[in-house]
Amino acid sequence: MPAGRPIGVFDSGIGGLTVLRALRAALPHEDFIYLGDTARLPYGTKSRESVIRYSIQAGDALIGREIKCLVIACNTASAVALDALRARYAPLPVIGVLEPGAKAACAASKSGRIAVVATEGTVQGGAYQTAIHTLRPTARVIAQACQLFVALTEEGWIDGPLVTGIIQRYLEPIFGTPAEEHPDCLLLGCTHFPVLRPVFRSVLGPSIAIVDSAATTAAVVQRMLEETHLGRSGEAGGTRLLATDGPERFARVGGIFLGERIELGRVEAIDL
Amino acid sequence: MPAGRPIGVFDSGIGGLTVLRALRAALPHEDFIYLGDTARLPYGTKSRESVIRYSIQAGDALIGREIKCLVIACNTASAVALDALRARYAPLPVIGVLEPGAKAACAASKSGRIAVVATEGTVQGGAYQTAIHTLRPTARVIAQACQLFVALTEEGWIDGPLVTGIIQRYLEPIFGTPAEEHPDCLLLGCTHFPVLRPVFRSVLGPSIAIVDSAATTAAVVQRMLEETHLGRSGEAGGTRLLATDGPERFARVGGIFLGERIELGRVEAIDL
Repeated sequence: MPAGRPIGVFDSGIGGLTVLRALRAALPHEDFIYLGDTARLPYGTKSRESVIRYSIQAGDALIGREIKCLVIACNTASAVALDALRARYAPLPVIGVLEPGAKAACAASKSGRIAVVATEGTVQGGAYQTAIHTLRPTARVIAQACQLFVALTEEGWIDGPLVTGIIQRYLEPIFGTPAEEHPDCLLLGCTHFPVLRPVFRSVLGPSIAIVDSAATTAAVVQRMLEETHLGRSGEAGGTRLLATDGPERFARVGGIFLGERIELGRVEAIDL
Repeated sequence: MPAGRPIGVFDSGIGGLTVLRALRAALPHEDFIYLGDTARLPYGTKSRESVIRYSIQAGDALIGREIKCLVIACNTASAVALDALRARYAPLPVIGVLEPGAKAACAASKSGRIAVVATEGTVQGGAYQTAIHTLRPTARVIAQACQLFVALTEEGWIDGPLVTGIIQRYLEPIFGTPAEEHPDCLLLGCTHFPVLRPVFRSVLGPSIAIVDSAATTAAVVQRMLEETHLGRSGEAGGTRLLATDGPERFARVGGIFLGERIELGRVEAIDL
């Protein structure tokens, strides 16, 4: 496998750009191809079978572009399709965001009481609950579906009293209990949510750890590249952005998640 | 065309159940088959080509179930795919929600200044703007994309201070101007939004007319059935509910829009 190849990053839409952002920060010499399946987002409310089928189509499209590893920057796809993708593309490394996120939460929690906020599909599938229990069998996991956060962040509403109120409403049932009972760690189990981190912090105060998958996943990819000698050095890497629908919207809204302005001309439309 | 056949109703998901609710109220003797393309919702952020393709697949599925007319209870599909569906299924009557909604707004507005709230796709396509201008060329239309309302209503958050605050935030730029300049009519241009009507009313006060497509579309279907002698009388009609994905979620969340509890066993899963 030539080390010069790009790293493929797949998401159901634009939320995974928070993972791409962390990857680029950790691995500035690598090239990236990001594919957002915007034609079929959100995956969070789709069936298991549909998510696996869509993920394979997206994976195939990236494999066809000669990547050296595949990052599944979508919680729902990581929860549901990771095994199928690993089997299909072996020995190519396939890394999901779910295990790194669960690991970060287990490391950050002292009490073993961990709260997870995610989309409905991720929560109902129980993937974070399972991943955390695998690492820490005595952990107590409270998972809360928060359907409004995706719309909020895509609208660019990422601070202010309304956003604070919405986050309080979702978190009150979890953290409104006495401190000795409630979780000491909040895992942001959806790639959209890290842009709301300052508001989560203001609502929860300083004593609750807040973790997300983006930085942890980037660290896992970095270690894998080192171990397999697949890392690139030298000049700064580039990023290609692909979307299955609505490149205009991808460019406009995606900047919130990538943390930099995206010019419309940079987004290539593809069919899966 | 036998009058005993059911009326087909198609939506991208569950919001169209507000239209089905109005149809059932206006036409209690009719049978209905409702198809929610939940596997691919929302249409509001999809491209024109995708929406037309999906709408034809859904239309074909309903035509295959021997309906006597087709109601497109989805604003995006009505805006984008109505002509294609009419051409494909002629002489079968195909009725969208867009023209009835535009007509209701034109009738309700004295000043000709009309505000439309809808999804991003509907607003950007300019369909309501065009439909209103066709009926009333001097109308001044202000269209506002409100992406949060769909998530809000699907979460069941349909009243209270947060919902009021969110609606105020979206409407302030439109109605915050002096009364002699701002619109005198608000058209709810997405089938999800009628369940928020009481909050719109509380935010806008009594002097702004609020119209939606559901009741007006039902009236158009009723008149069409009378004129074509396709109406049914006699015993009360029944309703079949089909969904392309997630019947559990359809049943749980759909009740908000249909205005009655939906038992899980009632929702049939189909592939398109």
